[in-house]
Amino acid sequence: MDQDKVVVKKITRIRRDVKEEVEEIDDQVAVEAPVTIYLNGSELVTLLCTPEKIDRLALGFLRSEGMLTSIEELDTIRVQEKEGFVEVDLKNKTHLAEKLYGKRTLTSGCGKGTVFFNVLDSLRSKPLEGKLEIKSDSILVLMKSLQEKAKVFKNTGGVHSAALADQEQIIYFYEDIGRHNAIDKIIGDCLLDGTVIDDKLIISSGRLSSEILLKAAKLKIQILVSRAAPTSLCIELAEKLNITLVGFVRGRRLNVYSHAWRIKRD
Amino acid sequence: MDQDKVVVKKITRIRRDVKEEVEEIDDQVAVEAPVTIYLNGSELVTLLCTPEKIDRLALGFLRSEGMLTSIEELDTIRVQEKEGFVEVDLKNKTHLAEKLYGKRTLTSGCGKGTVFFNVLDSLRSKPLEGKLEIKSDSILVLMKSLQEKAKVFKNTGGVHSAALADQEQIIYFYEDIGRHNAIDKIIGDCLLDGTVIDDKLIISSGRLSSEILLKAAKLKIQILVSRAAPTSLCIELAEKLNITLVGFVRGRRLNVYSHAWRIKRD
Repeated sequence: MDQDKVVVKKITRIRRDVKEEVEEIDDQVAVEAPVTIYLNGSELVTLLCTPEKIDRLALGFLRSEGMLTSIEELDTIRVQEKEGFVEVDLKNKTHLAEKLYGKRTLTSGCGKGTVFFNVLDSLRSKPLEGKLEIKSDSILVLMKSLQEKAKVFKNTGGVHSAALADQEQIIYFYEDIGRHNAIDKIIGDCLLDGTVIDDKLIISSGRLSSEILLKAAKLKIQILVSRAAPTSLCIELAEKLNITLVGFVRGRRLNVYSHAWRIKRD
Repeated sequence: MDQDKVVVKKITRIRRDVKEEVEEIDDQVAVEAPVTIYLNGSELVTLLCTPEKIDRLALGFLRSEGMLTSIEELDTIRVQEKEGFVEVDLKNKTHLAEKLYGKRTLTSGCGKGTVFFNVLDSLRSKPLEGKLEIKSDSILVLMKSLQEKAKVFKNTGGVHSAALADQEQIIYFYEDIGRHNAIDKIIGDCLLDGTVIDDKLIISSGRLSSEILLKAAKLKIQILVSRAAPTSLCIELAEKLNITLVGFVRGRRLNVYSHAWRIKRD
């Protein structure tokens, strides 16, 4: 197991099953570390994350937040792994997005800030046009594959997993202490590899809230799949934006919350 | 079930157990809504939350973020439930915290922003002094009680729960789509009711990350308990700040990650 994902801690395990039993044992814990992103020389944001592939995290975050559209816009990227710094310089140093971002207020509760309504308004009028379809059996297979890959979760219980997949298999996979980070790392991979995103699915272990839906919508992801539950606002946005939302994919069952026509049932 | 916590949606349930079965059914979903907090006439932040007791959420958020220390500082609070607005006016209109907050950058990934290191530094030097103790059996009882109260989770799978408890029982309890919001609502209750916080425990269903630990530390909470896993940074901060971290409280077992002396084993 990689050192940047899992660390061993001495813990006290107390069992009260039959008789009391107290053990001092070594236990595996998910690593959490701060990573600060600098954009064009200015400190932009500090993310709390699993400190793996932090260059991908930075690029994916910038793409998600609309500050970087294509890898052509990138001038240089420097990573200081140990210190947790990623310095990104864009070719256009006077990028508007950077200034805009400074004015945002984002919440600590997994919730986006005042910018939320603007995003909502701008997306409302643009439902996705894609006609991507997938068999329900393929979704079950992809979720099984996601769970088999989730080794950090099995060892620590402290991370979420996310994947980008086509109808057949998982292409990129990450585990991270933050649901958003795992998806941003995938987006970073796509940018660097030149992988087309809008004909793929996102598969996640985490709950589906409005933020995750809007992140997917910005990438023109047509099918969003999770093992967990969606919120009401996530479903409402998915309906409006023509995104297929699939939740509670467990064993041989799944729930489709919006635009079920994309799920083939043969 | 309250309308502000659960809503019914028409969904498509697909089963591939024996033969394919497709049903259009009514399913219960956790409500997510944006709530915007105004402080002294200025828009401060929009939280995505379960729209229940949003006045408590606003007060607890302001307390957590250090903008409000006691209810004496509050001038007026106006709530527009349907619109999702809470307007808070403090007696001191030129409150420094409000200006400071504008400069923060918080992340979308459940991670706090650039302010993180400052918080870390300021807390490092001040470990908590409290000598609160609790029996391991009492923790098991409190967690069982938390789970029994978690009705929205049972119906939707889409929320976290959090409680403030003494050694005997749960005093305040909330379910919310955001882990942080549930704790902030509890803090709001404590402010309005004049309840002492620093001799109580926080019990949560969610994973324990550095942010939750720092939130508890600011409130001088000595014992933080969860059904889920902690991260490495959460454990390291708990060790330094003299906070007892208890995780994976399941059935008759629990793990103590720091300062196990507070857990009595008779």
